[in-house]
Amino acid sequence: MTRLDARTPTSSGFSVSQEAPIHSDDPIPTPTAPAPDILRCAYMELVVSDLAASRAFYVDVLGLYVTEEDADAVYLRTAEEFIHHNLVLRRGPVPAVAAFSYRVRTPEDLDRAVAFYTELGCRVVRRPDGFTRGIGDSVRVEDPLGFPYEFFHDTRHVERLSWRYDLHTPGELVRLDHFNQVTPDVPRAVKFMQDLGFRVTEDIQDDEGTVYAAWMRRKPTVHDTAMTGGDGPRMHHIAFATHEKHNILAICDKLGALRMSDRIERGPGRHGVSNAFYLYLRDPDGHRVEIYTQDYYTGDPDNPVITWDVHDNQRRDWWGNPVVPSWYAEASLVLDLDGNPKPVVARTDASEMAVTIGADGFSYTRPEPAEPVVAQGEYKLGNQL
Amino acid sequence: MTRLDARTPTSSGFSVSQEAPIHSDDPIPTPTAPAPDILRCAYMELVVSDLAASRAFYVDVLGLYVTEEDADAVYLRTAEEFIHHNLVLRRGPVPAVAAFSYRVRTPEDLDRAVAFYTELGCRVVRRPDGFTRGIGDSVRVEDPLGFPYEFFHDTRHVERLSWRYDLHTPGELVRLDHFNQVTPDVPRAVKFMQDLGFRVTEDIQDDEGTVYAAWMRRKPTVHDTAMTGGDGPRMHHIAFATHEKHNILAICDKLGALRMSDRIERGPGRHGVSNAFYLYLRDPDGHRVEIYTQDYYTGDPDNPVITWDVHDNQRRDWWGNPVVPSWYAEASLVLDLDGNPKPVVARTDASEMAVTIGADGFSYTRPEPAEPVVAQGEYKLGNQL
Amino acid sequence: MTRLDARTPTSSGFSVSQEAPIHSDDPIPTPTAPAPDILRCAYMELVVSDLAASRAFYVDVLGLYVTEEDADAVYLRTAEEFIHHNLVLRRGPVPAVAAFSYRVRTPEDLDRAVAFYTELGCRVVRRPDGFTRGIGDSVRVEDPLGFPYEFFHDTRHVERLSWRYDLHTPGELVRLDHFNQVTPDVPRAVKFMQDLGFRVTEDIQDDEGTVYAAWMRRKPTVHDTAMTGGDGPRMHHIAFATHEKHNILAICDKLGALRMSDRIERGPGRHGVSNAFYLYLRDPDGHRVEIYTQDYYTGDPDNPVITWDVHDNQRRDWWGNPVVPSWYAEASLVLDLDGNPKPVVARTDASEMAVTIGADGFSYTRPEPAEPVVAQGEYKLGNQL
Amino acid sequence: MTRLDARTPTSSGFSVSQEAPIHSDDPIPTPTAPAPDILRCAYMELVVSDLAASRAFYVDVLGLYVTEEDADAVYLRTAEEFIHHNLVLRRGPVPAVAAFSYRVRTPEDLDRAVAFYTELGCRVVRRPDGFTRGIGDSVRVEDPLGFPYEFFHDTRHVERLSWRYDLHTPGELVRLDHFNQVTPDVPRAVKFMQDLGFRVTEDIQDDEGTVYAAWMRRKPTVHDTAMTGGDGPRMHHIAFATHEKHNILAICDKLGALRMSDRIERGPGRHGVSNAFYLYLRDPDGHRVEIYTQDYYTGDPDNPVITWDVHDNQRRDWWGNPVVPSWYAEASLVLDLDGNPKPVVARTDASEMAVTIGADGFSYTRPEPAEPVVAQGEYKLGNQL
Repeated sequence: MTRLDARTPTSSGFSVSQEAPIHSDDPIPTPTAPAPDILRCAYMELVVSDLAASRAFYVDVLGLYVTEEDADAVYLRTAEEFIHHNLVLRRGPVPAVAAFSYRVRTPEDLDRAVAFYTELGCRVVRRPDGFTRGIGDSVRVEDPLGFPYEFFHDTRHVERLSWRYDLHTPGELVRLDHFNQVTPDVPRAVKFMQDLGFRVTEDIQDDEGTVYAAWMRRKPTVHDTAMTGGDGPRMHHIAFATHEKHNILAICDKLGALRMSDRIERGPGRHGVSNAFYLYLRDPDGHRVEIYTQDYYTGDPDNPVITWDVHDNQRRDWWGNPVVPSWYAEASLVLDLDGNPKPVVARTDASEMAVTIGADGFSYTRPEPAEPVVAQGEYKLGNQL
Repeated sequence: MTRLDARTPTSSGFSVSQEAPIHSDDPIPTPTAPAPDILRCAYMELVVSDLAASRAFYVDVLGLYVTEEDADAVYLRTAEEFIHHNLVLRRGPVPAVAAFSYRVRTPEDLDRAVAFYTELGCRVVRRPDGFTRGIGDSVRVEDPLGFPYEFFHDTRHVERLSWRYDLHTPGELVRLDHFNQVTPDVPRAVKFMQDLGFRVTEDIQDDEGTVYAAWMRRKPTVHDTAMTGGDGPRMHHIAFATHEKHNILAICDKLGALRMSDRIERGPGRHGVSNAFYLYLRDPDGHRVEIYTQDYYTGDPDNPVITWDVHDNQRRDWWGNPVVPSWYAEASLVLDLDGNPKPVVARTDASEMAVTIGADGFSYTRPEPAEPVVAQGEYKLGNQL
Repeated sequence: MTRLDARTPTSSGFSVSQEAPIHSDDPIPTPTAPAPDILRCAYMELVVSDLAASRAFYVDVLGLYVTEEDADAVYLRTAEEFIHHNLVLRRGPVPAVAAFSYRVRTPEDLDRAVAFYTELGCRVVRRPDGFTRGIGDSVRVEDPLGFPYEFFHDTRHVERLSWRYDLHTPGELVRLDHFNQVTPDVPRAVKFMQDLGFRVTEDIQDDEGTVYAAWMRRKPTVHDTAMTGGDGPRMHHIAFATHEKHNILAICDKLGALRMSDRIERGPGRHGVSNAFYLYLRDPDGHRVEIYTQDYYTGDPDNPVITWDVHDNQRRDWWGNPVVPSWYAEASLVLDLDGNPKPVVARTDASEMAVTIGADGFSYTRPEPAEPVVAQGEYKLGNQL
Repeated sequence: MTRLDARTPTSSGFSVSQEAPIHSDDPIPTPTAPAPDILRCAYMELVVSDLAASRAFYVDVLGLYVTEEDADAVYLRTAEEFIHHNLVLRRGPVPAVAAFSYRVRTPEDLDRAVAFYTELGCRVVRRPDGFTRGIGDSVRVEDPLGFPYEFFHDTRHVERLSWRYDLHTPGELVRLDHFNQVTPDVPRAVKFMQDLGFRVTEDIQDDEGTVYAAWMRRKPTVHDTAMTGGDGPRMHHIAFATHEKHNILAICDKLGALRMSDRIERGPGRHGVSNAFYLYLRDPDGHRVEIYTQDYYTGDPDNPVITWDVHDNQRRDWWGNPVVPSWYAEASLVLDLDGNPKPVVARTDASEMAVTIGADGFSYTRPEPAEPVVAQGEYKLGNQL
């Protein structure tokens, strides 16, 4: 259950509040040890069943740059990146996520990560030489939500290719933007992530206070990761950013030309949540990849938290286009630190798909009775807080 | 039945041929009188049930320019137009199309239109002062397919607003691009339109030679009108062009902001047919409006005619996104010259929706067995003809 | 001298008239033989001094597609083209234009071309097997203005690569748009081109009726060729079209990445004339190439002719950015049918550069005394004609 | 003089280093008091001579949103902003900058600001009710470089209009991006800003170590402010961000339509420094406004610092287009805390314009002897550091 008070409606259909209006009835205890100072989501290690097929998808189709590769793994980065990689494809028996990896501010933050997760009773492994090429001293944990998280500071620098327009493709990917995780109890996950230093920027709730998803950030974008309610722990998607919307359309056009349009799962479209333009693809193992552009700055500590009504049909697609069921239902397994898939626990709270689609669900485009559309010029709002 | 010979496959999944591979078993006789020399589709007269609501949609939302208006009608044009209007909204009891209007090259072409349709036994009405404001001497006919067609040359010139960027909106509509008509027997309609001087640019067929739709042009774009197989005569849509793809996305974004996203019926997306980027909207009466950009030049007399397999899942959306059933099923009535709705005749040929979706239909993304994707550099094709 | 009457001012700063307000005091006689029916500008044959360097520029940098090549020539086309080529690069001793080539509607139009130019006393050569690969029966002439013009109908068809997004680059060139010729006496050239069936769409004049440049079309865009006043006969530029403005910016970005930014001569910018977005490059021999997008439909016979004041500082760049002197002064030689450069004759009319820049020239951004800016909503213009 | 060691060349023509390679021979002493924790540049207070004319420029032309206004001031914000304003236009006798205002993380940071500047001997004024509407407790100082800086945390929240696409214009401004200051001694200014907690992201130097400009950030973009070498203290420009490049082009197009193209001073173009797409305008008082989009993430503490050679002709415009002299020479006065213009001190170090243009300057597009262009695929760079 969450606190429903103190929300201010806006002319865009959602509400804003000062603090994330989310409360967990079953919280993970807050450690006394301070959290590490996380800079940003940095890379994902993805286990793939056919390395050549995955390399073809991420390099030949999506245009990620190969920093290094060997028989078992390919290390990829976006055009703007100066750290060694944003994605590791590793050959393995079960397609899954081996690590959600975050960069921390200082080498000493690794000590903090060890202490923080050790106090929580989590399994913690530290490797001074890193778990992947190009990355030094690293800490991996199985976090209280069941996800394999990694923290590192030390990395080999590589060339930022932003100015290398001779290498760029029409669908150029310029940044790793965020991860998205599936977890059964969103308020519990949010509370834990807040303890880890994350801040909520947006969420989806219903009038009873059920939380369906929440977006959380360290860097000042809408998110470094999101918690999506569902059977978990699973990985919903990894998202890369382009500069402009036409870059995303170009990826669709290219997939059509390659007769791979069935890799497009959802979109392109405009998100309500985040205001970003988006596209969802599925890689050869079914891992979901989002292409994303143009959310907004969230770096002020009092950045207004946006709460969307789960029944607002524009929350997930601002144009009201339907969300395909696979997008709600399917996700990738995650691995424990031994490389075994984590068991998936069913969500017991209401399902977003169930409450919005079909016989028992409903969605609206406009609140009823229809509010008059706010006319141009009437956007002055005074003090919301 | 159509001629299936002499098609050349391409690396894009469709075939090309030199002549439209369409034959009618039930042709309308070719008149001995020459056809009028049609320049282009020029405007549509649309009967609407609530003139204020329709004006709000076309002017306040879509940004068409009001050339003139009175209590019963609004005369609208696109930014680039120099003739009086591209769309007339007229208040009336039954939402329907009163005229598909084409501009002809000379005043004398009106005499030709009269002779051509008179020979066909059609009802023909000529008004030296025109049927709408801003248009002079005009001929209206009930054509052999049941559609109300108009031809005119004389029109009042108005200012082309292409340079008036101070008036432009993010979703600026720059041209009327085409009409789209629903008719039961596509080969019969195509044969008649060829007699009227149109040339086929693309069509959709199956291996048995059933024709599901055909695109035909006078001006050198993919079409001035298309014939879509279905119960008819009905009007499927009217299409306006933007300069760029982001203009179309901006219309979607604006509809979301106005909480009118339910006006978006299909798209945005990339067409297979025409290669254009598209969006379909429904106006307050349900009349369908397409926003369209970037098809290709077709003005050479030997422009290759493209034939798409009806089972190619990328033919209507290059990205393989599904076509909603309403898009196949729903269309606007058309009026006879007395203003009464024309009776709708059912299509007896196979339905495109039925053969592609559901238990009895099928579509493919790639031909099976999968053809190897053509690698970059192997696009040299030699002599196709 | 030109007729200055019957022009209607517009709210955009230029005037419109119904007939091109251009008159020649020294006209080339109109042949009694009918002109060939020209479809469009089709290709240019360009002599280059270093074939490898030119190939690198047009293929590796600009992304034109190689249809065929041999030791002496490279045959290139744009993504949308279905005829054999839009540009032939031929190794030769003197960088120059060997042919401005136009496609005609029928094979019989070649007979018309022979008769038309023979009556004018021009040198005419016909080759049933064509002058270049992929092109059949062709006529080449030295026209009365001194330019090597070619006409052909027969051509080998090749694949239109519009749907081959896997091959497209960020700066994809989709069409040959137009040529631009330098000639001393613009009214004389315009009158001749009108006899050849061209129609003026825009021109630049001063109050005394001196004509500085004129744009003329067969296909319904702003031009298939333009006549620019200056020492001639010379070739000012060849222009290729992109779909969107960002494609043009991408070419600039790529040239920067390749440290070839000195190939950018002028732009990018928005033209006043044509309303198109543009960029001018210089190839390894100094041949000028324009990249161009988004002019407007001109196919109606009464399309308003636009006349710009030579002193309007937004005529050549709508943003008022200066035109570099090299753009006015430099141009490529053209060859006679023996391959020898045509002598260049000096312009005696006023120079556009001289009357607009420097001590003796002037330009204005706004007419003085400043006209009030036309407010939004006041764009209704009534009957201009 | 600066440290020239430890730079790594890149394939893009600039070098990178780990620490800003800038050293001051005449440093401002580092205070013992800790610096306030600055979040970002937040707003500028601009004194204008004609409030109506300035309002027309920023609201009617550029589309900034009016949060509040009265007879003496207009409070404006960008579409994405949730604090009260990003720009205050205040009527006054001398066009100048009254404040460069930064938001700090907590109210307590104002105490830190007071202590920090007081220790430096600066004039410091604190107003619990703020200096402008919508802003609470604020500190203004005359900083050691002569600039009027403001710090605040408390502000009235207003609605973020990112989702209000019905209000957006083709040239929509979405964020305040940065300031740019003119100061005679850049190394001295950089050292002071580093003490204030800023970090250098890029700079321009020559081989002798003269520093011509430096870019510095708090939020993780290329800059919150830059120090441009020249006579100062003066304000070079204030910059607003758009989402895409076409938005910037739309502003140019609109200025053309309004016959205000003479407000365009430089651009549009692509910066070398920052990799952003840009445009410079001059407001009715000559205050310079940049429109800017698409730089890169700089938030990691070891973000590589980029050093450009002052003679690299692509450093300020990646396309090599010339920088107009006014852009180097002209800038706005700044006011002291009594509202009097600060005296301007001449730069004694070499002038960027002088060393790059004209008889005594030089610039190159490519280093000589020409380095081979790095071919596609050769972008693997290994460990730069």
